[in-house]
Amino acid sequence: MTTPAFSPGLEGIVAGETAVSTVGDGLRYRGYAVGELCEQASFDEVAHLLLYDDLPTARELTEFQQRVAMARRLPEALKQLFPTLPKWSCPLDVLRTAVSAMAHFDQDAPDNSHEANLRKAERLLAQMPVAIADQYRVSRGLQPVLARQELSHSANFLYMLRGVEPSPEEVRALDVSLILYAEHEFNASTFTARVIVSTQSDMHAAVVGAIGALKGALHGGANEKVMDVLRQSGGPDTAEQWLREKLAGKERIMGFGHRVYKAGDVRAGILKNYCTQATAGNPELQKWEETAEIIERVMAAEKNMYPNLDWPAGRLYHAMNLDTSIYTPMFAMSRITGWAAHIMEQLSHNRLIRPRSNYIGEAARSVKPIADRTKNV
Amino acid sequence: MTTPAFSPGLEGIVAGETAVSTVGDGLRYRGYAVGELCEQASFDEVAHLLLYDDLPTARELTEFQQRVAMARRLPEALKQLFPTLPKWSCPLDVLRTAVSAMAHFDQDAPDNSHEANLRKAERLLAQMPVAIADQYRVSRGLQPVLARQELSHSANFLYMLRGVEPSPEEVRALDVSLILYAEHEFNASTFTARVIVSTQSDMHAAVVGAIGALKGALHGGANEKVMDVLRQSGGPDTAEQWLREKLAGKERIMGFGHRVYKAGDVRAGILKNYCTQATAGNPELQKWEETAEIIERVMAAEKNMYPNLDWPAGRLYHAMNLDTSIYTPMFAMSRITGWAAHIMEQLSHNRLIRPRSNYIGEAARSVKPIADRTKNV
Repeated sequence: MTTPAFSPGLEGIVAGETAVSTVGDGLRYRGYAVGELCEQASFDEVAHLLLYDDLPTARELTEFQQRVAMARRLPEALKQLFPTLPKWSCPLDVLRTAVSAMAHFDQDAPDNSHEANLRKAERLLAQMPVAIADQYRVSRGLQPVLARQELSHSANFLYMLRGVEPSPEEVRALDVSLILYAEHEFNASTFTARVIVSTQSDMHAAVVGAIGALKGALHGGANEKVMDVLRQSGGPDTAEQWLREKLAGKERIMGFGHRVYKAGDVRAGILKNYCTQATAGNPELQKWEETAEIIERVMAAEKNMYPNLDWPAGRLYHAMNLDTSIYTPMFAMSRITGWAAHIMEQLSHNRLIRPRSNYIGEAARSVKPIADRTKNV
Repeated sequence: MTTPAFSPGLEGIVAGETAVSTVGDGLRYRGYAVGELCEQASFDEVAHLLLYDDLPTARELTEFQQRVAMARRLPEALKQLFPTLPKWSCPLDVLRTAVSAMAHFDQDAPDNSHEANLRKAERLLAQMPVAIADQYRVSRGLQPVLARQELSHSANFLYMLRGVEPSPEEVRALDVSLILYAEHEFNASTFTARVIVSTQSDMHAAVVGAIGALKGALHGGANEKVMDVLRQSGGPDTAEQWLREKLAGKERIMGFGHRVYKAGDVRAGILKNYCTQATAGNPELQKWEETAEIIERVMAAEKNMYPNLDWPAGRLYHAMNLDTSIYTPMFAMSRITGWAAHIMEQLSHNRLIRPRSNYIGEAARSVKPIADRTKNV
């Protein structure tokens, strides 16, 4: 047997086939360019597109939104759990625990039929924002706010978080960010979800694993680091000097670069316009936009690296006065649509994802009686 | 750019390097053949081997066991959670929720240093059996039983589960099964854990994902299906006929075949001896051993397929009068050692695991106004 080819990190290795999205000639979800979806559709429509293979008619959209609205509540046990958790619990970790616990109360949990998976996907889409908003409020000593039947997904999230209805501009900006976060081919969290269900496990197990993968700074965790980068740079007057020192020290700058997009991420350009709108008239926020411009320019010139989606998303959520600790959970409450689509696709023509490894460890050795062993280190 | 090679399920693709184990010339953990480890070491020693790179001296073993013993208790919030869960909750799902929740109470949770990861690994090794045993008892209306400082890992698990001290033979048989379940190169759950931490996420996130992958019937879930196979066959008189009909119908027989071992799994042969011992003198249990023999013979002759580890493990745990619903959780409470070793190894020279996919979906299309869309299906 010859030793199979080895590509660290599976870079460039095709791990499967998908009809959900392609990044080939600009990111498209089921054939639609993301730029067009951002202009002409809502997140609710895009969620339908990903789960049901196409954009909804007006009636399909209404029925979909009604089903999701009905599911926007948590099991009692979860409501009881949140107040028992330490105040400093990481919100993304709590979302992971919450989704894992939702399985215990979902009668469809072990059912891997396509119909059951659609029902579970709609419930997770509905429940995840509630879990994020409730845990956020409970950890601050506030009462949870019940969702409102007539509000869209984005509007409801901001409403449950704050207890006051958000402005149409805020809802639109959040909606676009959720559209852009919804799906991205075989990223690490989606791939995690596919590996998990490839064993014939189930949707909750796969989503819980995906949330864990999303946490990392090389994936979804990056959007929580963007404002740190801007603040550390000190602002427009010092950003260039600060950045050049960081680059000289070979430090990674969060919000830049992407395994798939070497020449820039189309999503970053789309969301940047919403940052401009959201910060208009606010000098403190505009200062960070100006700082971001400077950093972008130097990164392009010095490193040939371009912003990814997290770069404007971190700034937008900050401009909306949202707490940094929930930026990655917000990524998750959008990506659940892409994860669910991939989970259903994997199960529809499944094959166990089980690669091999090259062994680089100790040669064969014999077990010595415990008295004859020598101390390690 | 040429389209990269595509291997469904990554079969035969090398996804990384490891020094933890090799299946090359018989399964070896860090150089030691598993057969020798089963004969000359305990599970506690093997856990030390996997986490600390070598078998312990007598003193190292004592200190390791003492640290683990100190950690054999659950956070209060988890003790409060278990009674609020539905009685029919899947024990492996509850273990997943429990491990996810343990992160909220572990001060080391976000620390990815090797030292912190060793501490977290020891705590998870200690806490997972407690979570399994406590949830098992609570779901049956029984009080949890506290672990005892002086008992080994295997003995403590049986003690916490039943409230009475197990026999040395039972402890030895369980110990061997845990040694054999501890580690297996890039299996689907371990690979899941590595993908998750490759984003720079953390150990709890990775273990939670791994538990999800273990659930599937093509992975750890198989050991809960073994007694179903035997019972469905009806016993020694009808097993051959039953099996031939199943095979004619192209049905998969759980407990047979393995992606990596085409000519039989060495672990299955080792554990079979413990099934023989555990069933000696009990005609009802021996009937299932006899049935298993018949099924093995026909599977080898007709399909050239051989038993995997789950085949004797399911029978052994049944002979020990353990409830079927905790067989996969027991696999997890052993494999935590291998998962942790791989998580630490991945982080020690990390590269994001992010493959690509081939797009097979809709061609590029334009978004229509919602009023012009036609109904799906």
